[in-house]
Amino acid sequence: MLADTLAAIAPVDDALAPAVQARLDNLTKPPGSLGRLEALIKSLAGMSGDVSPKVSPPGVIVFAADHGVAEEGVSAFPQEVTAQMVANFAAGGAAINVFARQIGARLEVVDVGVKGAVAGDGVVIDKVRPGTANFAREDAMSLAEAERAIEVGIRAVARSHAAGCRCLVVGEMGIANTTASSALLAVLSGRPVSRLVGQGTGIDISCLAHKARVIEGALAARQPDPARPLELLAKLGGLEIAAMAGAYLGAAARRMPILVDGFIATVAALVACRLQPALRGYLIFGHRSCEPGHDVALELLDAEPLLDMQLRLGEGTGAALAFPLLEAACRMLSEMATFDSAGVAGAAPES
Amino acid sequence: MLADTLAAIAPVDDALAPAVQARLDNLTKPPGSLGRLEALIKSLAGMSGDVSPKVSPPGVIVFAADHGVAEEGVSAFPQEVTAQMVANFAAGGAAINVFARQIGARLEVVDVGVKGAVAGDGVVIDKVRPGTANFAREDAMSLAEAERAIEVGIRAVARSHAAGCRCLVVGEMGIANTTASSALLAVLSGRPVSRLVGQGTGIDISCLAHKARVIEGALAARQPDPARPLELLAKLGGLEIAAMAGAYLGAAARRMPILVDGFIATVAALVACRLQPALRGYLIFGHRSCEPGHDVALELLDAEPLLDMQLRLGEGTGAALAFPLLEAACRMLSEMATFDSAGVAGAAPES
Repeated sequence: MLADTLAAIAPVDDALAPAVQARLDNLTKPPGSLGRLEALIKSLAGMSGDVSPKVSPPGVIVFAADHGVAEEGVSAFPQEVTAQMVANFAAGGAAINVFARQIGARLEVVDVGVKGAVAGDGVVIDKVRPGTANFAREDAMSLAEAERAIEVGIRAVARSHAAGCRCLVVGEMGIANTTASSALLAVLSGRPVSRLVGQGTGIDISCLAHKARVIEGALAARQPDPARPLELLAKLGGLEIAAMAGAYLGAAARRMPILVDGFIATVAALVACRLQPALRGYLIFGHRSCEPGHDVALELLDAEPLLDMQLRLGEGTGAALAFPLLEAACRMLSEMATFDSAGVAGAAPES
Repeated sequence: MLADTLAAIAPVDDALAPAVQARLDNLTKPPGSLGRLEALIKSLAGMSGDVSPKVSPPGVIVFAADHGVAEEGVSAFPQEVTAQMVANFAAGGAAINVFARQIGARLEVVDVGVKGAVAGDGVVIDKVRPGTANFAREDAMSLAEAERAIEVGIRAVARSHAAGCRCLVVGEMGIANTTASSALLAVLSGRPVSRLVGQGTGIDISCLAHKARVIEGALAARQPDPARPLELLAKLGGLEIAAMAGAYLGAAARRMPILVDGFIATVAALVACRLQPALRGYLIFGHRSCEPGHDVALELLDAEPLLDMQLRLGEGTGAALAFPLLEAACRMLSEMATFDSAGVAGAAPES
């Protein structure tokens, strides 16, 4: 399934850009005056292969899993919060539930590897294993498990697509997943761990130094190879990060635009782009998070996010908050009058 | 009416902040992790005097007027475009119509001084005079006309408020109004005109230099006094800028949060704050525009806008695009579960 998905991803289609540009330049506004919205609609046309792209309804998928490395004391929250938050997602009370309702999204929560049983109706159980192993001591999972976790993401997107979703937001929940993400990013960027780690959900300075040491020790022990992305996921985790990578790949294979969330989501995108570089053309970046590693990950992907709201929550919240800008870009192109139709004079010829 | 409105504006109420903060810290998310949304909801509570503020439905008011200075050849578009665009607003085809529909806003278009008759149903005709005089040659209007234009804005907000609007977006249409705004800002900031003027709707470099010279000549001739804001509006215009200032003041008097648009809207806010400094507490800035003077005006108001989408359209579009962030802040506070209600463990005590 993974190989077929990778093979199905075509580069985005630039052939429609001149037609979209011509339409943009005839709308009742000075040429170029809607700035990044104009760039967005051209990107969306290329992704979807449609000169009048649509992004509604969006699909939000939140992947949840646990991390064995949590036992090293790298998070402000106890590990059982992963399962508790999945129950909160199922009950509709988390931030992503609120923002998904606001944008009219279909929300699906997938347990790809929570430790223990999760409560709550409507959670899709597609568990590869009950949490990763502690990557400070051993590989987080096997290669086969990493591939299966990616395929969980591919399957989830297939359901969103079949339900009619036109754009994808992917979120995550997993106590200690900024630790796994920072480790992945250290390998992929070659930058020092100490420059990448951040406070995550809110650890203090001494815990931050401890988190960096745990990662440095793990990287020395695991010796992950940046040229082998699947092996990298297996060695460091996490299950939800692999599933996010799979969701991106599955969406690109279906020509669905992808709105990427914050730090963890961007690291997952970076891993997925190493598996299939053509994926990059389908990615729009929702926001710049507070996590210091996020800037590095964005730079590696040559990405400029839409929002900077100083968020550090995850769950897909920053991407969901950015979604109305995509919707506005689509409506601009499809609903605005043209100079001709509105009887408005164009700009005077330049002197 | 203006004096009563100025007197009715009370400073924003900080007394509710602790109650809002306590509620925020008990929501199922790490404390502070929703960044600027958390700051926004505290501001909105202080403006509205409500611990659970609401911003929907928003009201969008677009004020349109002409500028005599257009005859100096400072715009890329001919003056008749003002009236043509008002007809486009009435027909629902302009960018602000599209974005107002997206956010479920009540949209009102007010002719406060278009030259000639405007076509289209639903435009409120509250015309003070058919365009300003050319401020390069004489005062744009009389003091009495400037005050009447401000009162047009106060009346318009009264209608929005009576119709149930909970938040205000103010836009403008007026060929050559970046010229008037740049002149106002030069006086209020004391900065050189050449550092403030921009391409507006799209003039070229030689026209930009001409625009700066027209403004410099007008300021030398009119000698406007920065300490007299009403006189400043009378000398330089424009009618729609005065109406915007009035709308802000009317909204603050009713404790309605105000989402400020781009360059022209921010200059109008600056003038209005000189009339009543307590207004500043009711202003949220929607976006940072491309116009170079906007950065200066924002700095004078100590403002950090929500979006940076490289817009230069006006009409209220940037503020309308930012509105979903205010809506998200309100929903966060009112819809998210608390740690107790959701049975989620809080952060571990810091070691």
